[in-house]
This record gives sequence, structure tokens and C-alpha cells, in this order.
Amino acid sequence: TALDDVTVLTVATEENDGFKRFLRSAKTYDIDVQVLGQGEKWEGGDMNFPGGGQKVNLLKEKVEELMKTKENDHIVMFTDSYDVMFLGTLGDILVKFKAMPDTRVLFSAEPFCWPDPKLAAMYPNAEVTNPYLNSGGFIGYLSELNAILNARKIKDNEDDQLYYTKVYLSELRDSLKISLDHKSEIFQNLNGALSDVQLRINTTEEWPYLENVATKQRPLVVHGNGPAKLMLNTMGNYLAKSWSMKKGCALCAERKIQLNEDNLPHVMLAIFIEVATPFVEEFFESVLLLDYPKNRVHLILRNNVPFHEPYVDEFYNKYAKEYATAKRIKPIDYMSEAEARNLAKDRCTNSMCDYLFSVDSVARLKPQTLRVLLTSGYDVIAPMLARPGQAWSNFWGAINASGYYARSTDYMDIVYGSIRGVWNVPFITNCYLVKMELFHTPKGQEVTYVKDDVDPDMAFCNSLRSIGVMMYVNNEEDLGHLVNHENFDVSRTHPDVYQVLDNKMEWERRYLHKEYLANFIDGQKPKMPCPDVYWFPLMSPRFCKEWIDIMEAYGKWSDGSNNDKRLEGGYEAVPTRDIHMNQVGLERQWLHILKEYVRPLQEMVFTGYYHNPPVSIMNFVVRYRPDEQPSLRPHHDSSTYTINLALNTPNEDYTGGGCHFLRYNCSVRDTRLGWLLMHPGRLTHYHEGLPVNSGTRYIMISFVDP
Amino acid sequence: TALDDVTVLTVATEENDGFKRFLRSAKTYDIDVQVLGQGEKWEGGDMNFPGGGQKVNLLKEKVEELMKTKENDHIVMFTDSYDVMFLGTLGDILVKFKAMPDTRVLFSAEPFCWPDPKLAAMYPNAEVTNPYLNSGGFIGYLSELNAILNARKIKDNEDDQLYYTKVYLSELRDSLKISLDHKSEIFQNLNGALSDVQLRINTTEEWPYLENVATKQRPLVVHGNGPAKLMLNTMGNYLAKSWSMKKGCALCAERKIQLNEDNLPHVMLAIFIEVATPFVEEFFESVLLLDYPKNRVHLILRNNVPFHEPYVDEFYNKYAKEYATAKRIKPIDYMSEAEARNLAKDRCTNSMCDYLFSVDSVARLKPQTLRVLLTSGYDVIAPMLARPGQAWSNFWGAINASGYYARSTDYMDIVYGSIRGVWNVPFITNCYLVKMELFHTPKGQEVTYVKDDVDPDMAFCNSLRSIGVMMYVNNEEDLGHLVNHENFDVSRTHPDVYQVLDNKMEWERRYLHKEYLANFIDGQKPKMPCPDVYWFPLMSPRFCKEWIDIMEAYGKWSDGSNNDKRLEGGYEAVPTRDIHMNQVGLERQWLHILKEYVRPLQEMVFTGYYHNPPVSIMNFVVRYRPDEQPSLRPHHDSSTYTINLALNTPNEDYTGGGCHFLRYNCSVRDTRLGWLLMHPGRLTHYHEGLPVNSGTRYIMISFVDP
Ligand SMILES: O=C(O)CCC(=O)C(=O)O
Ligand SMILES: O=C(O)CCC(=O)C(=O)O
Ligand SMILES: [Fe+2]
Ligand SMILES: [Fe+2]
Ligand SMILES: [Mn+2]
Ligand SMILES: [Mn+2]
Ligand SMILES: [Mn+2]
Ligand SMILES: [Mn+2]
Repeated sequence: TALDDVTVLTVATEENDGFKRFLRSAKTYDIDVQVLGQGEKWEGGDMNFPGGGQKVNLLKEKVEELMKTKENDHIVMFTDSYDVMFLGTLGDILVKFKAMPDTRVLFSAEPFCWPDPKLAAMYPNAEVTNPYLNSGGFIGYLSELNAILNARKIKDNEDDQLYYTKVYLSELRDSLKISLDHKSEIFQNLNGALSDVQLRINTTEEWPYLENVATKQRPLVVHGNGPAKLMLNTMGNYLAKSWSMKKGCALCAERKIQLNEDNLPHVMLAIFIEVATPFVEEFFESVLLLDYPKNRVHLILRNNVPFHEPYVDEFYNKYAKEYATAKRIKPIDYMSEAEARNLAKDRCTNSMCDYLFSVDSVARLKPQTLRVLLTSGYDVIAPMLARPGQAWSNFWGAINASGYYARSTDYMDIVYGSIRGVWNVPFITNCYLVKMELFHTPKGQEVTYVKDDVDPDMAFCNSLRSIGVMMYVNNEEDLGHLVNHENFDVSRTHPDVYQVLDNKMEWERRYLHKEYLANFIDGQKPKMPCPDVYWFPLMSPRFCKEWIDIMEAYGKWSDGSNNDKRLEGGYEAVPTRDIHMNQVGLERQWLHILKEYVRPLQEMVFTGYYHNPPVSIMNFVVRYRPDEQPSLRPHHDSSTYTINLALNTPNEDYTGGGCHFLRYNCSVRDTRLGWLLMHPGRLTHYHEGLPVNSGTRYIMISFVDP
Repeated sequence: TALDDVTVLTVATEENDGFKRFLRSAKTYDIDVQVLGQGEKWEGGDMNFPGGGQKVNLLKEKVEELMKTKENDHIVMFTDSYDVMFLGTLGDILVKFKAMPDTRVLFSAEPFCWPDPKLAAMYPNAEVTNPYLNSGGFIGYLSELNAILNARKIKDNEDDQLYYTKVYLSELRDSLKISLDHKSEIFQNLNGALSDVQLRINTTEEWPYLENVATKQRPLVVHGNGPAKLMLNTMGNYLAKSWSMKKGCALCAERKIQLNEDNLPHVMLAIFIEVATPFVEEFFESVLLLDYPKNRVHLILRNNVPFHEPYVDEFYNKYAKEYATAKRIKPIDYMSEAEARNLAKDRCTNSMCDYLFSVDSVARLKPQTLRVLLTSGYDVIAPMLARPGQAWSNFWGAINASGYYARSTDYMDIVYGSIRGVWNVPFITNCYLVKMELFHTPKGQEVTYVKDDVDPDMAFCNSLRSIGVMMYVNNEEDLGHLVNHENFDVSRTHPDVYQVLDNKMEWERRYLHKEYLANFIDGQKPKMPCPDVYWFPLMSPRFCKEWIDIMEAYGKWSDGSNNDKRLEGGYEAVPTRDIHMNQVGLERQWLHILKEYVRPLQEMVFTGYYHNPPVSIMNFVVRYRPDEQPSLRPHHDSSTYTINLALNTPNEDYTGGGCHFLRYNCSVRDTRLGWLLMHPGRLTHYHEGLPVNSGTRYIMISFVDP
């Protein structure tokens, strides 16, 4: 048969994302598909229930028309469209079809007898892997197909698969030579077949392909029937030459669009602060730095956390006027999250706004993010954002039976960027761009964030999925990350400084000394103000200030006596007026600072000494004052090495002070804000705290590896 | 009454030590005593049993004689002599006696009704403290006494006390006005009264005195009756102006004699090595150094310990000829200790030898000791020798009921030298001088070291006590000390070097570096070959040699691999070829060396670091050889400070070697025998052992305070 002796047919009354994917796959393999029912109203019922008789009637009409012009050995292939992709050429399909013994019509096969399980008993050989007929794909000679379609009458809302099944189970099976593709030589139905089917990505082949490992076949048509359509969405990211190991995301390239810089789209930037969020200052900074003209941006600023209101105020007062329009929702508006999100969407729908750009305060965006999303060409697209170094991200690769997060096989690869592209996923949150056109259709108007017992973002994604709108996440390049708000405790003074474990990136930027990294420049000799006493920039001025604020807010300085209930032995031979880190909930954080930032300095200068993590039981801020305790008598520390961080500045905040090392008759008096002294603790560096003459001196001390 | 109207009488058939003490006490208080029975044979029986009728008959005779010349109001006082001392003048005695109401004769009183307890029922007032008559002392008017003595007949071997008791219990009590000194106003019997009686030494009075704390009396005659005679021996050291806090030992001064240098006494020097003894070399050295011409000394050298025989051989061969005579008893003579000691005594008795000087190998004598003892004027005298710093000595201050050691109240004062003098004690051992005359009397010939189930020295002292010979110990000056042989284990190689805990004095002299003490000279700057690396002379060359010998004799050097079963973790990252101190039983000793000799150096140089005792788990000798393990790669030690003692000498015993401190780019190559390097272990002093090119380098290492 020549290829023009084959007619490929499908039915589609809508042009949704699934249909577009179907057409693209046909085009990929040069398959010319005739679409039946375009522009017609669908009467076939909800896809999740029996129905689809309309497909049979549309096909019957078309086949009768072909009977008039075509030979009897003309071949017709029919497939569903929204949940189907071609995986090979028509030539390959015909070769396989013609090689089938005693077959004039071949239906795809599946493991479930649906929609009427009682019919299972009537099937001839129920022992094969996929015993039952599926009507999502079939191929056959024109005359036999015509006979099948004229066997009985079917209403548009009756079930198509039941129709064909009854034909197959009648005497027509033998007379018309109807077979089932039990081995998925051509048709692969995914429902119930997930353990048989494998997506092969990293092979010697140029493009990923599907393999039925049970039958050793490479199917040429894949059908994400029933609940398997989410699996097809995932596989669709790779199949039909969408993505390859070598070429990356071919599909992304096809879809990219250009922006007209003279007429840039209007974007509704909807900011949501729903939870107390670490480093909100840095969040607003990243928003301000988005590379997009603010006069094309409409701002909605929703804050539901009283703790953040002062800073939100500051930001809004300063910057709202730069945006095209601006609106604010405050904690005292008592609006639920879902309502607020709906409000933003509706405000966008009802205005001349082209895109909704929804950004939660936990999202931290690169300046280019908005433009990257706009030019991607997808309707609903999120930048891939993850908590640095963690699996937690703003999308789900799969969804489990109860609608919640499940891990897809490629989830970690996408999060860690070991594969890059734009990925069809079932759930996105925290930050995404939505094309507003979507919401202008009747179905689009039903999309909502409000659903009982379901989080607003889940409700939103659920409703997009239910109208056949696909969501994508973009990790073509690094577009930002998420902060972790889980342990953010706003009852603390300066809670951000507590975040070193949870939000390292922000914490380092704000609190590490700007010259900290320069400590490690090769060939540079570290400062040594006294023998074996090193001196390093460690913490930023802001860190020092906040650290002091925390201590003074807490206020319970020890009394400087030898009796100290905080210590195991209850006795301190060389007492200071101090506050221990565990009294202000900073113990874990400080130990982490020791491990992450102090230890590498130690390893650099005290060659060969390696103790990871550093152990330190005594971590405290000391306060020296002329009228309280001005100095500290000579002593050793119970440490391998001691660190002594200057939290404020001599001759500015106080006069006098400093540390004197008696065996070397050497003092460090001109200590520097945020700089760390590091000295051996136990044996050689007998030392004393020199008297403070005026003002208050604060230092942070740790006895490391006691 | 004038004093010459009193006659003081006693009975003594022998002139033993107790009698001499009695006479001296009388002389001290100017009391003129007439002694009855002198030169006569004693028929009164054993002092420990009833008897003494002879005393009554001798007295009766004397009193009848006095009746002829004296007035009726002449007063007669009678006391025992061997176990009695006067504590005051006759004047004081008369004043008290005359003040007694209704009394013409006063007998001393005691708490036991002896020798016939059945008579107790006949006593008039048995409720008083000392209800019963004692005949060891009484005073009365001549005529009444005469009546008492003529009341009945008594045989020499019948009991005197029973005689007087029967008189007292008859109608004569009232008619002759006989009273008992219940309150010990004059007479103090010690037996049964020890809790009433206190020896007052450290008072405002010039001389010690006896006080009856129950009756608040100061008795004027003390009687060590029965078993209390040992107590009297102790008290006699102080009473009757024998000794005072201020004047010290007045008695010693009285007894001292001068030697005739032209005719010095012959001394039998009897040396006994009965037990394996630490530092025997030093023992013989002290013997050789005794300040006495060897030609007046007869040597008996008895060794019963095969381990010592080689050195005894050496000594004997070299020095025996210098002595007047010399005899040797060897282990192979299979002679018991008691026999050997008897042999020495008898050899002395049967020759022209004046003194026996018995010296055990545990005794360490000052050169002057023999002369000090010879000139002391005592017949049996030991130098006070004690284990340094311990209570263990060569004498007992008291004896318990079973004849063994008991502590006297002054024992520790004598041992520690807080009181000095010559002390009457019931037992001496290890070293003593005996005047041979003693053994020429019939009783003296019974003295022996042999007694079943009793140690030879106890047997000897027992038999001296039983013949009334008193033993003395001299602590007027320091005459030497004892070594401690208890933990001396001759199965070890060089067992003496194991003795640092038990025999510090000898150990230090032999094994400490001769410049060790010079380390501590004020104002001297300790050597510092590299920054914070100190260098001290610590151990003697002999120590180093023996230490190496011990390791090589043991021989089980580790294999230099990372797996080391001797360690808790089983893993050593930087292995050496070594032997740990606990493998050769030197762990406790070495830790003691750390504490006693290394720690003070550390405290001197690493100011303010105090850790006592030093803790060290890793203590080992390392062996470097070109063909085995020549060097040690850079590392830190798990120590606060490390010590590294050179056990042999570069360019003599090996070439190459030394310790290189990488952070300071500084090496110590010219290490010195017995010198210690001390350096911080953990943080600053990254170091390596430099390669040995030829020979073998040995070092002793400790990781102190890990
Ligand atoms: O005042 C100083 O810089 C020394 C403080 C110190 O030594 C200590 O807290 O242990
Ligand atoms: O060879 C040396 O002197 C150094 C030995 C040493 O560092 C060690 O045993 O830990
Ligand atoms: Fe300190
Ligand atoms: Fe070492
Ligand atoms: Mn259907
Ligand atoms: Mn379908
Ligand atoms: Mn008697
Ligand atoms: Mn007596």
C-alpha cells in the first residue's frame, strides 16, 4: 500500500493542549491527520465516564464518504487525540500491521474489560497480557471497517468502546478478521501497563523512545487512557522528539516567542505573603530587580502576616508609585488566601492585563525570570525554584491517587538541573506566569483557587487540569530559588539571623563579612597580630549589631560570680558577664557557623588539625563595662582553640579593652568589627581581657574542641 | 617529819634495765633508796604469776632492824623497782600522806582483786574507782608496818599481795589505820587505769607529767604492774625528766659514752639479704661508706636471694679482704633466716667481738650511723629507719595482746621526727646494734631468733623482753631509711627502674638526669630550639640504657601498620614501630614520672596550664631504623602537649633523625641523651619524624592530656 492509500483520522471538538501535542507528534513523523468534529459541539459526555458514541458516528460518516472514492484495500487508522501521541511513521505502522497474520482490522488492547467487566467472560483467550479491546486506536481495511461501523446503531452519548467490544465479541470477529494488538506492536495503552512500559532516554539512539519490556516491542502510538493521562504528560516531555540527551529541549525551542519591546504585554504582578518569611527585605529587593518596565506591571501586594507589615509598608510607600497600578491587601482586611489569589486573578481577567505573574514571598527570582517565562511560549509556566540543596521545589512531578505530591522518576534530575528544559507537570506553586486568555473561555471562567479542604494552589492546579490546561515548569536556566520558612520564629529578636541553617544563601549574603571569601585567596598570608594568633574578617556589621540587640533584648547577663548554674559543674573559675547561646536559642545556629565558616579558617592556618564538626559547649557573648566587669584576669580556656569575635568597635563604642597574651607579652587592642581572633586555648596562650575604660565592649567567644 | 626520818626501800635481786630506770628516777628527785636483796637469789617466782613473798620477808627483816634505831613515828616507804618510777620528791609524797585522814599506813590501790578475786566480796567499800589493794607501793609509820609484817608468816614463793590483802581485810585494818590510795594521790598503778591516766607532754610545765584525769591527781609514784609494764616503758621515755619539749632527750645526753679511737670496739657487721631488694647496689654502697675502720669490723654476708648473688659475689670478691674477718652464707647453703641470724649472734658471742651490728638489705644507713649507735650508751639500739614519707618503720611503738604491732600515740611523731631522742620500744628490726655482754649472762644465753610460728625478729625481741632487756630506737638525727621491697619483681628486666613509685629516693638518685633540678633554678631561661618547643634534661644515661634494654628484651615491636589492636579504636592513622608501656608493665611507673618530674617542667613553661595528674593513654618507645621504619610523616598528636625523650644519641648511635615542626619550618636534629622535648600537641605544632639514615634511633613518647 502506498502511504496515500491510508487515511488517518481522529476526532477533536476542542483545540486544547492535548490536541496540540497530538498534532505536533503527527507532524514530527510526517503523518497527515484528518480531524473530524472540529467546531462541532461535543455530545460524548465526560471523558472520565463511559461515552464517546459521537466519535463512532463521526467516523462512520467519514468512512462512508471514503467508500465512495477509495478502493476496498484502502486502509484507515483512527486514534483518540487529546491523550494520544504518535511515536513513529506511518510506514513503520503499516509494515507491522501487514505482517499480522489473518488480520484485516486491529484494535489496541488493554488489561481492563471496560466499561462492562461482565463481558470479560465472553473473550476468546483471556490469558494473554492485554486481553481486552480498547477503542482509542485501531487500524483496518476500509470495507471491513465500514462493516464494523454499520453493524449497529449508537447514540452520541453511548459508549464507543462498548460498541466496538460487542462487535468484536460477535461472529463479525471471525468474518471480518478483527484482531487485538495484545503485544502493543503498534498501540500502547498506558493504563494498567506502567510496569510493562519504559521510557528509554539515555541510550545510543538519538531520541528517547517507549519500550514495552514485557513484549520487547517499541509501540508506535501511545494512548494515555483514563488515569494514565498524567503519565503521558510526563512521557510527552521526551517522546516524539521533544527532548534529547544531546539536543536538550527541542520542543522549547519550537515554542519560543519574541516580545515586541514597543508593546510589551501587561503583567499583573501578584505578590503573596501568606506565611512569616525569612529575609523579606531580600524578597522585595529581588522583585524590584525584575527586568521588566514597571509601567507595564500592575502590582497587587497581599500581606497576611502582621510581623511583616512594617516592612511591607515601607516598600509600598516607596515603590508602589513606580508601577502602572498598585493595590494592597493587608492583614486587617481579613481575607483568606484563596480569596486573595482569586481576587488577583479576577482583577487581571477584568482588566487589559495579558499575564498574571503570581509570586509568593518564599520565591526568590533572578532579574530575567519574568522575561524568560514570557518568551517561553507556554500558557502556564513556572520558573523551577527549589530550596538550595534540597528536593523541595515549587512543582510536583507526579500526583498520587489522593491528589497529593508523588515523585516522578525525573523529579530530582529536574530539581538539580541535571536535565534542563520545560516540563509538563501536574502541579506548580509559589511562582508562575499565566496567560490571561485562558480565563476568557467559558471553561476558563470556572478556574478557581477556592475549594473546600484543599489548599488554594492545589485547587488552582486541579481546576486547570480538569479543563485540560497543561502546566509547565522551566529549568532551562537558573531562575531563582525558594527560601525555607518552616523554622522561622518571629517571636525572636531579629529572626533572620537565626536562619543560617535554613536559608544559607540569604544568610551568607546578609551576615557574612564581605571580605570573608577573600580569606581563602591563595598565597595570601593571614594576619597574625601575636604569635599563632590569627585574625580574620568573619561577620558583617549588621550581624554584629543584631547579635548585640538579641543579647540586650534578652538581658539576663550572668552575675560574674564563680557560681554558674548554666554550667555542668556549677562553677566557673574565670567568670565573665555573659549570655550563653543556648539561653537565646542560638546554640545550633552558632555551632553551624563554627562548622561552616570558622572551621575552614582553622584548617587553613592550623595545618593538619581537622575536627569536624567542631565541638563547643561554651559559646557566649561577653559584656565588659567599667562599672560592671571591665576586664578578665589571666587564664587559659578549656579549648583546643578559642575564637573571639569583636561585636563592636574600640574608640567608637568604648575605650580600652582588647586581649593580652602574657607568654608572648603581646596584645590585640585595635580589634575590628566582625573580625575574629583565633588562638590556641589551653597551653601556650595564657591571656587576659584588658580593662575597658568607658563605654561597653561586646565580644562573642567560643571554646572550640574543649 | 624531816626527810631523814623516812626510809625508802625496795627489793631487787638483779640490776636490769628496769632497775636502772627506777634508780635514775629516784636520783632525779633526790630520793635515797635502800635496795634489799641485792646479790641474793630470787625465789619469788615469775613476775607474771603470783609470788613475791621473798619481798615481804626481806622487808620484815629490814623493818625489824629499823625498829631498833628509829622512833615510832619514823616513816617507811616501800615500792617495787623493775616496774616503778618516782615522779616527785619525797617531800611532796609526805605532804600528801600526812594529809590523809585517819591513816597510818597507805597501800596503793587498783581495779583488780588479785591474786584471789574471791576476796573482793570482803572489801568494805567496793564502789570506789580502785577498790583493791596493790602491794607494789605503800607508805606508813614504822610501828604499824612492823605490826603488819609480823601479822603472819609467809614463804618466799607465796604471794606478797595476797599477804597484805589478808591483813587489810582483817581487824588490823581499823586497829592499825590502814587505808588504800583509791584516788592515786601518791601511787598510780597503770594496769586497768590507762583511760584514767594521761601523759601530759606539751604543757606550760617544764617536764612531762602523769595526770589521773578521773581524780585530778598527779601521782608521785607510777607502777607498771602486770601487762602495763610496756606502757610504763613508753611513759618512761618522758617521765622523771627524761625528755622535754624544750630540752629534748635529757636521758640520752646522760647516757652517751665516748669511744677510744685507739681501741675501738670490735663490731660484727652481719648483713642479711632475706628478700629480693630494690637498689642493692646502693645498699652495698651505703655499707662501704659506714664511717668505721674496716679492720675493726667482722663481716658476715648472708644472701638468700639467688637474683642478688651475682652482685653479692662482685661485692664480696672486691671488698671482703678489707674487713677484719669475713664470712659468707649463700642461697645454696639452704640455711633458714633464723638460723643465719643465730649464727651471726653466736659467732659474735664466741669471738672477741664487742657488738653485733645487724643490717638487713632493706636498710639504708648514713655513714655516721654505726658511730652514733656505739656512742649512745644503750645496750640494744636501732637507728630509726622508715620508708620515706610513710608510717612503715623498723620499730613498733607498742605491741597488741597477740604480740604484734600496735601503734603508740607517739609512733608517728617519732617516725616523722617531730620529737627526737632515744625511745624505749618493744620491737626493733632490720638494723640494730647489740652489746655482746648481754649474751654472756646465763639469761642472755637463752636469747634466740628461733621460735616456732614467729618471725625471727619477733622471736629475738620477745626473748630480749622476757629477760628484761630494753630495746631502743634512736631518732636524734636522721640515720637512714628503709627501702620498700613489696613490689619488687625480679622477673622484670632491670627491675629497679620499675621502682619509681616504691623507692623514689634511690630511683631519683640513679635515674634522674643529674641536671634535672637545675631546670628549676630561678631566672634561668629554658631552652627553646623551636617556637614553643622546650628542651629539658630529664633522665640519666643509665635510665635511657635500661629503658631500651627492657624494650628490646620484650621485643614485640608493632608492625607499623594502621591496624593496632592495642588501641581502643583498633586504628592508628600515623603508626610508628613501637612498644607501649603497658606491654612491659611500666604504665603506672611512667605516669608517675609524668606527674612527678615532667609536670613541674610543664607548669614552669606553659604558664597557667595545670592538669594534675597528667593523663596519658599513649606512652611508647619508638624505634626508627633505615630498613624498618626510618621516619614518621607529618601529623598532629592527640595531646595537649607531647613529650619526646631521646633514649640514645645522634651521630653516635645513629645518623639522621630528629623532629621537624612544619608550621615553623624548624627542626631539632641534635637531640641529647635523656633530654626531653616538650611541645603543644594538637593544633600548632604539626610535626614529622625525620629519616634515620643508619643505626637505630629510640625515643620515648607520651601524648599528655589527650
Ligand atoms: O577580653 C578578651 O578579649 C578575652 C576574653 C576571654 O579570654 C574569654 O572570655 O575567655
Ligand atoms: O620522631 C620524632 O621525633 C617525632 C615522633 C612523633 O611525632 C610521634 O611519635 O608522634
Ligand atoms: Fe579566654
Ligand atoms: Fe607526634
Ligand atoms: Mn472512550
Ligand atoms: Mn482516550
Ligand atoms: Mn607481786
Ligand atoms: Mn610490780
